[in-house]
Amino acid sequence: MSTTLISGGTVVTAEGASVMDVLIDGERIVALLAPGSVPVTADATIDATGKYVIPGGVDVHTHMELPFGGTNASDTFETGTIAAAWGGTTTIVDFAVQRTGERVQDGLDAWHAKADGNCAIDYGFHMILGGIDDDSLKAMDSLVAHEGITSFKLFMAYPGVFYSDDGQILRAMQQAAANGATIMMHAENGTAIDVLVAQALARGESDPVNHGITRPVAMEEEATFRAIKLAEVAGAPLYIVHMSARQAVERVAEARNAGANVFGETCPQYLYLNLEDHLGAPGFEGAKYVCSTPLRSKHEHHQKDLWRFLRTNDLQVVSTDHCPFCFKEQKELGVGNFSAIPNGIGSVEHRMDLLFQGVVDGELSLSRWVETCSTTPARMFGLYPRKGTLVPGADADVVIYDPNATTTIGVETHHMNLDYSAYEGTTVQGGVDTVLSRGTVIKRGNEFIGRAGHGRYLRRDLSGYLL
Amino acid sequence: MSTTLISGGTVVTAEGASVMDVLIDGERIVALLAPGSVPVTADATIDATGKYVIPGGVDVHTHMELPFGGTNASDTFETGTIAAAWGGTTTIVDFAVQRTGERVQDGLDAWHAKADGNCAIDYGFHMILGGIDDDSLKAMDSLVAHEGITSFKLFMAYPGVFYSDDGQILRAMQQAAANGATIMMHAENGTAIDVLVAQALARGESDPVNHGITRPVAMEEEATFRAIKLAEVAGAPLYIVHMSARQAVERVAEARNAGANVFGETCPQYLYLNLEDHLGAPGFEGAKYVCSTPLRSKHEHHQKDLWRFLRTNDLQVVSTDHCPFCFKEQKELGVGNFSAIPNGIGSVEHRMDLLFQGVVDGELSLSRWVETCSTTPARMFGLYPRKGTLVPGADADVVIYDPNATTTIGVETHHMNLDYSAYEGTTVQGGVDTVLSRGTVIKRGNEFIGRAGHGRYLRRDLSGYLL
Amino acid sequence: MSTTLISGGTVVTAEGASVMDVLIDGERIVALLAPGSVPVTADATIDATGKYVIPGGVDVHTHMELPFGGTNASDTFETGTIAAAWGGTTTIVDFAVQRTGERVQDGLDAWHAKADGNCAIDYGFHMILGGIDDDSLKAMDSLVAHEGITSFKLFMAYPGVFYSDDGQILRAMQQAAANGATIMMHAENGTAIDVLVAQALARGESDPVNHGITRPVAMEEEATFRAIKLAEVAGAPLYIVHMSARQAVERVAEARNAGANVFGETCPQYLYLNLEDHLGAPGFEGAKYVCSTPLRSKHEHHQKDLWRFLRTNDLQVVSTDHCPFCFKEQKELGVGNFSAIPNGIGSVEHRMDLLFQGVVDGELSLSRWVETCSTTPARMFGLYPRKGTLVPGADADVVIYDPNATTTIGVETHHMNLDYSAYEGTTVQGGVDTVLSRGTVIKRGNEFIGRAGHGRYLRRDLSGYLL
Amino acid sequence: MSTTLISGGTVVTAEGASVMDVLIDGERIVALLAPGSVPVTADATIDATGKYVIPGGVDVHTHMELPFGGTNASDTFETGTIAAAWGGTTTIVDFAVQRTGERVQDGLDAWHAKADGNCAIDYGFHMILGGIDDDSLKAMDSLVAHEGITSFKLFMAYPGVFYSDDGQILRAMQQAAANGATIMMHAENGTAIDVLVAQALARGESDPVNHGITRPVAMEEEATFRAIKLAEVAGAPLYIVHMSARQAVERVAEARNAGANVFGETCPQYLYLNLEDHLGAPGFEGAKYVCSTPLRSKHEHHQKDLWRFLRTNDLQVVSTDHCPFCFKEQKELGVGNFSAIPNGIGSVEHRMDLLFQGVVDGELSLSRWVETCSTTPARMFGLYPRKGTLVPGADADVVIYDPNATTTIGVETHHMNLDYSAYEGTTVQGGVDTVLSRGTVIKRGNEFIGRAGHGRYLRRDLSGYLL
Repeated sequence: MSTTLISGGTVVTAEGASVMDVLIDGERIVALLAPGSVPVTADATIDATGKYVIPGGVDVHTHMELPFGGTNASDTFETGTIAAAWGGTTTIVDFAVQRTGERVQDGLDAWHAKADGNCAIDYGFHMILGGIDDDSLKAMDSLVAHEGITSFKLFMAYPGVFYSDDGQILRAMQQAAANGATIMMHAENGTAIDVLVAQALARGESDPVNHGITRPVAMEEEATFRAIKLAEVAGAPLYIVHMSARQAVERVAEARNAGANVFGETCPQYLYLNLEDHLGAPGFEGAKYVCSTPLRSKHEHHQKDLWRFLRTNDLQVVSTDHCPFCFKEQKELGVGNFSAIPNGIGSVEHRMDLLFQGVVDGELSLSRWVETCSTTPARMFGLYPRKGTLVPGADADVVIYDPNATTTIGVETHHMNLDYSAYEGTTVQGGVDTVLSRGTVIKRGNEFIGRAGHGRYLRRDLSGYLL
Repeated sequence: MSTTLISGGTVVTAEGASVMDVLIDGERIVALLAPGSVPVTADATIDATGKYVIPGGVDVHTHMELPFGGTNASDTFETGTIAAAWGGTTTIVDFAVQRTGERVQDGLDAWHAKADGNCAIDYGFHMILGGIDDDSLKAMDSLVAHEGITSFKLFMAYPGVFYSDDGQILRAMQQAAANGATIMMHAENGTAIDVLVAQALARGESDPVNHGITRPVAMEEEATFRAIKLAEVAGAPLYIVHMSARQAVERVAEARNAGANVFGETCPQYLYLNLEDHLGAPGFEGAKYVCSTPLRSKHEHHQKDLWRFLRTNDLQVVSTDHCPFCFKEQKELGVGNFSAIPNGIGSVEHRMDLLFQGVVDGELSLSRWVETCSTTPARMFGLYPRKGTLVPGADADVVIYDPNATTTIGVETHHMNLDYSAYEGTTVQGGVDTVLSRGTVIKRGNEFIGRAGHGRYLRRDLSGYLL
Repeated sequence: MSTTLISGGTVVTAEGASVMDVLIDGERIVALLAPGSVPVTADATIDATGKYVIPGGVDVHTHMELPFGGTNASDTFETGTIAAAWGGTTTIVDFAVQRTGERVQDGLDAWHAKADGNCAIDYGFHMILGGIDDDSLKAMDSLVAHEGITSFKLFMAYPGVFYSDDGQILRAMQQAAANGATIMMHAENGTAIDVLVAQALARGESDPVNHGITRPVAMEEEATFRAIKLAEVAGAPLYIVHMSARQAVERVAEARNAGANVFGETCPQYLYLNLEDHLGAPGFEGAKYVCSTPLRSKHEHHQKDLWRFLRTNDLQVVSTDHCPFCFKEQKELGVGNFSAIPNGIGSVEHRMDLLFQGVVDGELSLSRWVETCSTTPARMFGLYPRKGTLVPGADADVVIYDPNATTTIGVETHHMNLDYSAYEGTTVQGGVDTVLSRGTVIKRGNEFIGRAGHGRYLRRDLSGYLL
Repeated sequence: MSTTLISGGTVVTAEGASVMDVLIDGERIVALLAPGSVPVTADATIDATGKYVIPGGVDVHTHMELPFGGTNASDTFETGTIAAAWGGTTTIVDFAVQRTGERVQDGLDAWHAKADGNCAIDYGFHMILGGIDDDSLKAMDSLVAHEGITSFKLFMAYPGVFYSDDGQILRAMQQAAANGATIMMHAENGTAIDVLVAQALARGESDPVNHGITRPVAMEEEATFRAIKLAEVAGAPLYIVHMSARQAVERVAEARNAGANVFGETCPQYLYLNLEDHLGAPGFEGAKYVCSTPLRSKHEHHQKDLWRFLRTNDLQVVSTDHCPFCFKEQKELGVGNFSAIPNGIGSVEHRMDLLFQGVVDGELSLSRWVETCSTTPARMFGLYPRKGTLVPGADADVVIYDPNATTTIGVETHHMNLDYSAYEGTTVQGGVDTVLSRGTVIKRGNEFIGRAGHGRYLRRDLSGYLL
């Protein structure tokens, strides 16, 4: 096996930052070294002087090839993981889907079939449970025990599609409490929201902005609180996905202060985009920004507070909820009916850059950037210390990040299979220089030199982030 | 019309207490007088010296003859209102029921048929909506406009019986926001509770105490918060019935501090009885105490806090949720299966006495006793100032209350049609001396001298208690 | 003694509103009557049809002739109480002052000397304790027992003048806990504020607006919380005067929810005037608006929240903190040095009108207007039911208020001895029609027909507003 | 320079735990290595198989030789640092003292004189400011710039000794805001407490337990909140020392949720000892447990909550507040007068063991043990990454901790200069095996092989723990 030495860079972890050399042997990191202190020979040396050396990004919320709203998310596991690699993300955890009426194992098998041999970086799966019953509850135990799937996502939204009622949710949480898994929740009151949606459409309010208007903050806050209370009854860990409303995060904070294993995730779109300017863009343009939970009003200081919650660890994780649909033909399914617009924004490629801009802007510390984008996601979902950190023994998923670069985001330059960018023309400071996945350089400068099939399926342990 | 002078008593209202004479002409109070200051002749004089003169009690939560669990609440409108009168309550607001699939107006007509000509005191109706759809929503407007019914009760509990889902609740709340009505809510997460009930029964845990154990505090708190948030979206006033868990009331307090029209009611059973000693009594004895929300644990200081919430006006109303089922044949339906025990406790006769004991114990002021048991219920449900106060122009519903009497509660002495008492053997200080309903003495000393049929149906206005 | 009948008006009390006649015999109300129901002859009849009949206003925070900052408040007890009467206020409670080093009784005697024979309406005294020591603590007991003074004001502001340290405050609170008195608190951290003031002056920031800038919200919130905690240790009731910052009121609300006897008062200036437009007016104009606590920034929604707190009873009382200083010669003492501007705004004449505008604007209900301006102040400070309500037996302090009048406020028309008005040119809807003090008409239409010396000293009981 | 390899142990850091080898060259760690992956030769090898390898403990709150109450803390820098080393603590930050009236630099010089050449481990100083004035404020800047002292402690307790008033506190905080230092606060309302103390003594309540009774929870909570608000006005970071009352920590949590740089520290005595059993021990025995803030009542679940706050990072640091006074002659100064008992408990030797027991008991995770006892203290006070972590480049302060050992605490076996132990007879699981300070083994098995004078003064940077 060949060895690589990354020398002279500032190694940034969740704990701190200092100049160290990183020695890689084959697929793993084998040593951290004070520069010049221990004589080391390596087959290759990468000079990282003046740059940050960070654990590769871990994006725990992606939806490659997801069938939704009569179409499929536009990134395959191949295009999506290559785009992720370009952006400094070296692990994704995607959502396998059990559709209502389907066997859980069948849903999982279908997901393996999509991903197997196609990924450029390592990947794991959460399992969406679209039909809670005795069989799927048993399947949860089996997935935890045998498949390395230790987290299950339920939906309080989308009645008739992924929706579980509170009794089903409680049962799944009880199962998780027993087998150690974590419940992930899409927390919006879909039953109430569907009434608001139907009423808006009946009034002829069909533009994309109505997607946001019919999903009020109070319905995210309510569902978040409900999930917390159900988890309290069941005794299960709970992770709320894609939080956008500060009031909802305050409920997470309240539970956490009381000592509950409740966690929250936000996404770049909630930190940068808003209801008025983006979802409310003229014409059908707003369709590009349709996702759920929706973008929130710029007049209610959600973004300022979300950044704060990231600092105070009331939010622990930044993922993308990457779920791209092209504007042409896909988003356009909802012309004249906002509720038919496929939900999702694609940004698996841009998370590390967009969040580094938060460092530049003084919103996050360097360590907190790494912690929210890499370390905590890995710990939360049982991948640590294999992923999410730079310690001897860990997989050599390493990103060399250049704080002096600048990155301009747009459809011309991005690598996602997506015909628009939600951040078109945005320039941020910093840029991904070099990316290693399990010891192999897969991206260097302006060149992708990895390959589909390099990425391996990750059997995950139980969460390592519980109180 | 004949005149009556109640002289020399201490008139207690929600605002204060002072010695005044009360002059009644026919059915109404026509004057409050400083004793000896204005020469008045009256056909009859009642000497109230040394006693309290208070507005008759207003019990806004009774269920006479309610069909529930395959049987009927054991008090008819006749027996129930006579018992109420004995206990100093001169107005009840009972719940007419629209069963699922039934027309609202038909349910109301059925209730009128039960009550008409049978009541010893005045009565009004709320309407339980067991099936929210376009028709019943329209019926709400009609009841508000034409029937004097301005409050509608929904259930988050009892799936398959009275249960409404969140979309139905939202629609009813929107209707109420438009027509000015108040939504009353049974706030327990019935969908989750039914899972816990089924699991307990499957484990062979069938004793009455399991009724309480399977309805955890968190599920009352959750549903309370959910109702508050749905009401926030709809813009409707919300009144949470029979609150027993301090955590749930804290959610009401939180909403009220924020300026919302959210209100809470508790009942004597939650102030005096508990899960361990009563619901957990040996054998099947606990069945006597099965009601929903359930009695709570004595180890969690709910009672201490409920009294405090009454003092601080975080709870505004004390009602009984009077829903009596005899132990023999009725409660016994649930031998071997707690979930088949009819839910309810009968105490329409004892509310004023049990709460006066709170005054004796220093938990409530005299004025607050009157306010929570009479004035606020009347204002909350559009009966004020006709009921709930003693001012010229008001109905002469007057109770002369003797603070020096003592009252012992028990099945031998009570007047409810109920073969047991939840307060058997309890002695409280104070007692109802004389009761007038619309100017007529209907109870004097140990004698009931009213009659079924004296009571009239009350068309109620919109709530007079909104911010 | 002569009798007066006020007929046909809508009697508004803290509890409700209905059309009633009010019969007065001599100095007292002797009957409330349903119109036309009881034959009554009276020496005089006042037709109040179409108008509100309310208990006279009770202003529990005035400073007539107060020596402060080297000058005296410009209203004497004569001019001040006549102005109060013009504005519908029939009772004031003024602050007698024990200066540091002075005997308490001497300070009280001096206040009686100023007021005796000079007041147009009834008046009581609180006592400011400027020097807590063994003697003044004993004097507290004596004032409660013999002088009808049951409330004592302390200052956390103004070191070197009225300031008490936390040990002194605790001792006074312990004394109050024992003798039943209420502690009133000026809650601002004066020690810290004086540092900010000195620093601002040293930087040459001498304009009036700096008065507000150097008294930050956090220092009102802090002192409020400190007073609450000291009162918790001592077990004494606590009343925070002139609250202007919403954060401070939130601390009061928090304590009240926990069941503490903690109360809060605000004043019209905090509901209508702000830091930028008024205190920050060009030139020296802002001096007109210098008072402590200061006016707050219009950008922090204090006013919106103060109105809400009045609705939710987190604030209980509206007083004026009437402390007028003329612009010429008095306010001008602070030209070039904001800290030398005498603190105070005069509005004893306008409170009832300014708050009725809150009713017009939908901020307060009619009953809540009466409750905050009359009933609760009377109950809070031991004057109820003699003052603050309209019941037989009460003093006949009655205001007939015309909701259809309009009132324009300004120096040309007001009756206070003050050469400017903080509300110059403001027109509000509603106006005081007729005012009776203890049965005597003292103001009718545009005529004052009372007299200095009519007002009597009120010996007050202990607070009737405690939980 | 010689090299040492610590092999085969489980390296535990604040971030995680995994088996690694640690290579030391001279005084520094130079490499972390995956075992067996890189050929390394070392002069010495320590086999840590089956044991934890952790960064040496950092105790940021000690008082060696502190003059207090007419006597001196009984540990010298020599005895105290040797005891610390025995217990796995390799860095202390002690409090140099500026007494009132003394020059700051003189106080610092005196402290250097005590410590220089006498310490067995590395040490830094905070500075207690006992007299805030223009000179001492300037001295703060100088200490930050030139002396490596970046934290300053103020007292809201002890009027007449260390006490600063709120104006002085504000000025010091402003200075800190400007120069980047952190303000440390003893948060108890000493002015009020002194009243309670004098009253207790006057009532003849002189036993040690009265020390706790006269320092009520509310006075810790109050002072904590006051400090937070003063820091908000000044814009300075704030660190509250030795917190014992859950209500006070809740104020810290509230400020932290709002994004403030407010931090809290607790100590082992508050996690294990209580008012009734220890401070209230019979006779004068309780004197052993006199410290401030005092031990709290076991009936108010402070300890349960303090552990929770450590888990949720509402408390960040565990220190000892090591301030030992012998029972004989020192504690005995307070026979007959609890207020004359020197305040302090000695436990510098036991912190790591007592907190590891928290790991054993399931209160803390392994990583959180290291984080609260070593990493965060180092980051908080500008010693990271030199101290508090195990990374290449860091000082080789390493503890090998044996989780299978047991440690019994008592005066016969401890190494502090103290004639009693507050934990006499307590046995905890786990024990310190080997201790290295800057690469030198100073404790091995039952042998101390370090020396006074090995320890060096640490010039500290500004805090690395700010948001």
